[in-house]
Amino acid sequence: MTQKRDHGGGLDAAINKYGGTRADWLDLSTGINPVPYPMPALPGDAWTALPDQAAFDRLYKCARCFWNVPSDAAIIAATGASAIIAALPRTAKPAQVQISGPTYNEHGAAFQASGWQVSDSAQSTMVVVHPNNPDGRLWNEADLNAPFTIIDESFGDVAPDQSLIHLASRPGTVVLKSFGKFWGLAGLRLGFAIGDPTIIAKLTDLLGPWQVSGPALTIGAKALADPQWADETRTRIAADAARLDTLLTRNGADLIGGTTLFRLYKVKGAKATQHQLAQHRVWSRVFPYAPDWLRLGLPATDRWAQLEAAF
Amino acid sequence: MTQKRDHGGGLDAAINKYGGTRADWLDLSTGINPVPYPMPALPGDAWTALPDQAAFDRLYKCARCFWNVPSDAAIIAATGASAIIAALPRTAKPAQVQISGPTYNEHGAAFQASGWQVSDSAQSTMVVVHPNNPDGRLWNEADLNAPFTIIDESFGDVAPDQSLIHLASRPGTVVLKSFGKFWGLAGLRLGFAIGDPTIIAKLTDLLGPWQVSGPALTIGAKALADPQWADETRTRIAADAARLDTLLTRNGADLIGGTTLFRLYKVKGAKATQHQLAQHRVWSRVFPYAPDWLRLGLPATDRWAQLEAAF
Repeated sequence: MTQKRDHGGGLDAAINKYGGTRADWLDLSTGINPVPYPMPALPGDAWTALPDQAAFDRLYKCARCFWNVPSDAAIIAATGASAIIAALPRTAKPAQVQISGPTYNEHGAAFQASGWQVSDSAQSTMVVVHPNNPDGRLWNEADLNAPFTIIDESFGDVAPDQSLIHLASRPGTVVLKSFGKFWGLAGLRLGFAIGDPTIIAKLTDLLGPWQVSGPALTIGAKALADPQWADETRTRIAADAARLDTLLTRNGADLIGGTTLFRLYKVKGAKATQHQLAQHRVWSRVFPYAPDWLRLGLPATDRWAQLEAAF
Repeated sequence: MTQKRDHGGGLDAAINKYGGTRADWLDLSTGINPVPYPMPALPGDAWTALPDQAAFDRLYKCARCFWNVPSDAAIIAATGASAIIAALPRTAKPAQVQISGPTYNEHGAAFQASGWQVSDSAQSTMVVVHPNNPDGRLWNEADLNAPFTIIDESFGDVAPDQSLIHLASRPGTVVLKSFGKFWGLAGLRLGFAIGDPTIIAKLTDLLGPWQVSGPALTIGAKALADPQWADETRTRIAADAARLDTLLTRNGADLIGGTTLFRLYKVKGAKATQHQLAQHRVWSRVFPYAPDWLRLGLPATDRWAQLEAAF
């Protein structure tokens, strides 16, 4: 219970260790788009009024359009995909769950906190991250056939052609979407669960009413009705990911995989590389279970020089 | 499961029925302070960065100071007290719970959705709203002695002298605080659970990480470090509540109770009074279980004329 899990982020801890101010640091430890969706003007009552059902309805309409959600799938927004990940194990009776790893570690932690056992041989419940974090692995639809299947597409918006959203109409299946990563607004806290109406109804009870802020309802609806920004972003981050690969491979790293929002490299001693980059105020992600894996997100447009100087 | 509960708010539904635009309407159906805490400038990364542990720590320090939280009580913030109310029944094994009503209906709904039975004779678990919504009833410490006791002080900041926060250090006790109501920022979504570290640890698992937005962390910390604004607000809302009482009693209503953020009146036919006020674009709260109860929040400083004209 309540054990601190290993994550990206934690820039404050890096600052404590290596010095400098927040502004000095280039935080590449997460997969958050560094060029966020431009903040729209917020209506005055976005902050002051209790979020209205109509605002939720607007957000859900835009989400259904943007992700081409099957009509018979239900949808709910929450304060980040993280809130949904924490709640999902409580929508079913604890049993065994298959979580193909290595992957994002909140899924296993949430199932275990709810009394489930994580097991490679479990057949009734499975969780996949698609594309997978940190290696970018994509899943075949044919392999996702458990009676209770969770498909976490938190990084799926980089490659909508690969989305398995059509499976959201299948009984027992839930697809997760994250807003913070692709739209670069992780502080806003917005995520979605889409799928079997019975499971979504249980999530509704678990999360309680007014579970998303007024600003998140407004900004989410606007961004999800703006496919042009999404298209341009996909083009830009693909170019930046290629530029990152060039820089890293030139410096002796091998590309393992990733998505266009983060890249996973094989290096000689990830901790030593993390330390070297940190001397230049660049923060990276290492993995306790893989001592030669280094994950890097994309720098903002005007911060490439700092990264290049760190090698 | 997932039944729509009766609440204040729902202004959109009133607009659909009676016409007018949002700006035309004076929404007195909730107990939200109509003069919100002034929005501070937000640091750029409040929207873009994943909320850092340091930002949570700052918020918790300010909350502990503002509410004089006992040192041995734990604290957690969530996306509204509503998220905590939904999660609390899952921190213990379902049994019977005593919820002295009439009161805020989300408590009973959350316990029932988790398999609990609401019973007047339950002795092991009890929930009180202090001061109570809608009648303002205050509780005696001596009566709050169940092994698992939830004290919902969502409206407690109007009268800090009456707070039972010192009970948060008692095993099995949790005190709830709401930010949206007193500070008038219900769209921000911020609430707190304070109490027994074992229960707060379970809530931490239930809610998942990064459970509060970056703007809420920033604004909450600033407001909770500003006791002067809180003092001035208490004086202002007390004067406004008295003015509202004068207006209503002059028009034949009797005061039942309330807090200085909302007033509960006995009227001849609450539905008819609600309808009459709605003709003037004033939205009020009625209660399905009490046909002569009408609850009104406070109008903003410049909207009294609209309310006075409605009688």
